[in-house]
Amino acid sequence: MKNKRKDSLSKSTTELGEHNIIGLIQDHLDLMPNMPVPFGDDVSAFEIENERVVVLKTDMLTNKTDVPKEMSLWQAARKTIVMNVSDFASKGVKPTAIIVSLGLPRTFTSKDIEEIACGLNAGAREYGAYIIGGDTGETSDLIIAASLFGMAQKKDLMLRKGAKAGDTLAVTGLFGKTGAGLKILLNGFKATPKVKEKLVASVCMPKARLIEGLTLGASKTVTASIDSSDGLAWSLHELSNNSNVGFTIDKVPIAKEVFQFAESNRLNPLELALYGGEEYELVVTIKTEVLEKTIKEIKNIGGCLIPIGTVTKDLKILIDIDGKKDIIEPRGWEHFKS
Amino acid sequence: MKNKRKDSLSKSTTELGEHNIIGLIQDHLDLMPNMPVPFGDDVSAFEIENERVVVLKTDMLTNKTDVPKEMSLWQAARKTIVMNVSDFASKGVKPTAIIVSLGLPRTFTSKDIEEIACGLNAGAREYGAYIIGGDTGETSDLIIAASLFGMAQKKDLMLRKGAKAGDTLAVTGLFGKTGAGLKILLNGFKATPKVKEKLVASVCMPKARLIEGLTLGASKTVTASIDSSDGLAWSLHELSNNSNVGFTIDKVPIAKEVFQFAESNRLNPLELALYGGEEYELVVTIKTEVLEKTIKEIKNIGGCLIPIGTVTKDLKILIDIDGKKDIIEPRGWEHFKS
Repeated sequence: MKNKRKDSLSKSTTELGEHNIIGLIQDHLDLMPNMPVPFGDDVSAFEIENERVVVLKTDMLTNKTDVPKEMSLWQAARKTIVMNVSDFASKGVKPTAIIVSLGLPRTFTSKDIEEIACGLNAGAREYGAYIIGGDTGETSDLIIAASLFGMAQKKDLMLRKGAKAGDTLAVTGLFGKTGAGLKILLNGFKATPKVKEKLVASVCMPKARLIEGLTLGASKTVTASIDSSDGLAWSLHELSNNSNVGFTIDKVPIAKEVFQFAESNRLNPLELALYGGEEYELVVTIKTEVLEKTIKEIKNIGGCLIPIGTVTKDLKILIDIDGKKDIIEPRGWEHFKS
Repeated sequence: MKNKRKDSLSKSTTELGEHNIIGLIQDHLDLMPNMPVPFGDDVSAFEIENERVVVLKTDMLTNKTDVPKEMSLWQAARKTIVMNVSDFASKGVKPTAIIVSLGLPRTFTSKDIEEIACGLNAGAREYGAYIIGGDTGETSDLIIAASLFGMAQKKDLMLRKGAKAGDTLAVTGLFGKTGAGLKILLNGFKATPKVKEKLVASVCMPKARLIEGLTLGASKTVTASIDSSDGLAWSLHELSNNSNVGFTIDKVPIAKEVFQFAESNRLNPLELALYGGEEYELVVTIKTEVLEKTIKEIKNIGGCLIPIGTVTKDLKILIDIDGKKDIIEPRGWEHFKS
């Protein structure tokens, strides 16, 4: 892990992008022996005794890049928790406790701070966790870095690695709403009030699929799992790289508001569904012989599990809908590049 | 915990200061039942089973307020780890794993990022921990938020609460170096090269008293403990408030370089020792009957434990050196105010 990547010595953050930056950092870290979860998966973990692991995750929200003007401080704080919970959900782990590092600009008032505190608390309680501590300091931008903790059995963790050819690829919901919502919030695209409300809510009031993730974990039918926070296409490429498989997608479930938005703005709904971001569905592979049983279990807890394709030996990620074939590109939302 | 502090509704962060901001946030959080460590202590914790706790801590370094120009990125990254380890040390807990949220300005290069990664790794390995994950995003200032994790028995934690009248107050080292070092780095004060080197090193290359903290924890002789990261005076007031006791100080151990610096700059060395900050000694109270035994144990591991006064029923914090009595004020280094 100590080899310097000489070719990247003079690159800027924008040339590198978030994923290369993380790789560069990992290159300079000593590896903890026997890591139960490899670097680069959605969470980190360490074993405390026979097979029992502490699961950790930190994710940072910064108003420089992550907070559209229309999003309230309460919503931004809650969302910071939700995006971390989503990673726990994708591994099948329940978050117990949360600590928060809060960077506040001097211009913030006590009312702003109270709004942030209430949003953090609301996000935590919504998923059964508590904020148990933190730290605050002065920053130019608002920064909310939340760290989540939970316990799990090592064998119960759903990793990005493990998908096998023949497994079924499935997702927990419809795609494209956040891609469309971000176009409204950041690029001034228009929509009817009713459509706009739904699309903007998907960005400002996201939900993590925690109950689905815990149910999938308990079902023991999942072979690999990730959330779609960097976009569906990116998630598929991550699963592909980590499991050394490919996919053939025969269906991309898209929300009806996305079709309406895409039509009135002459955009491609499939593009919005594949290459959006900040969409917190789970993307999992399931042993095909227990697919129906798993779909029923998820239906029983009020969720949905939609098969969208199959896992292939061939490493390509193909989309094949109504005889129209295409390659899904490895792109999505990325800090420093997007 | 849900009562709004109405009097603070319109205050700015600078009027509030770090400590009131943290209080304001806590007012709006639901309390986790049976918290093994109360809000406001140096670390957070949650119980995972009979008496066994996971210990957590997050502390953020921001180059807007925490990084003097002379401090390298490597040093800043290492220091972020050290300041978190110091809190673990003060509770007698060994850190196992660390996750990091890293906010990077666009202007940073791959060389800068490598320097930060190496500094984080060096800090972690110096204290036997590993960096096992993290997140990065774009920010205006450099932000390094580290979260530390470890395991402990609830009864072994050295809290801020627990000091009893008659106990001896003791510290793990000399004071004043960082107070003087910060005056050199931030306010342009002068010193001879040899003195300057020592004082600046205390700011740029701090050490956490982890071995001392673990040894004190194992000794079972400590009744209350805190680190001196916000200054010795502030730590004494925190111990006083949390333990509902006072102190009479008969000695403040000050480094010889601080006397030299203070003399040539016409400053009060006691002021530098009491009201500095970012000084990572441990400040503990010890049952007086086992003081000598504890001093020997700390000497055996290469550290030192210096008695500086006694715990009193009277809540005042008095300094009484050579017959000169004075009150130690509740001030120190505070974000947003300093």
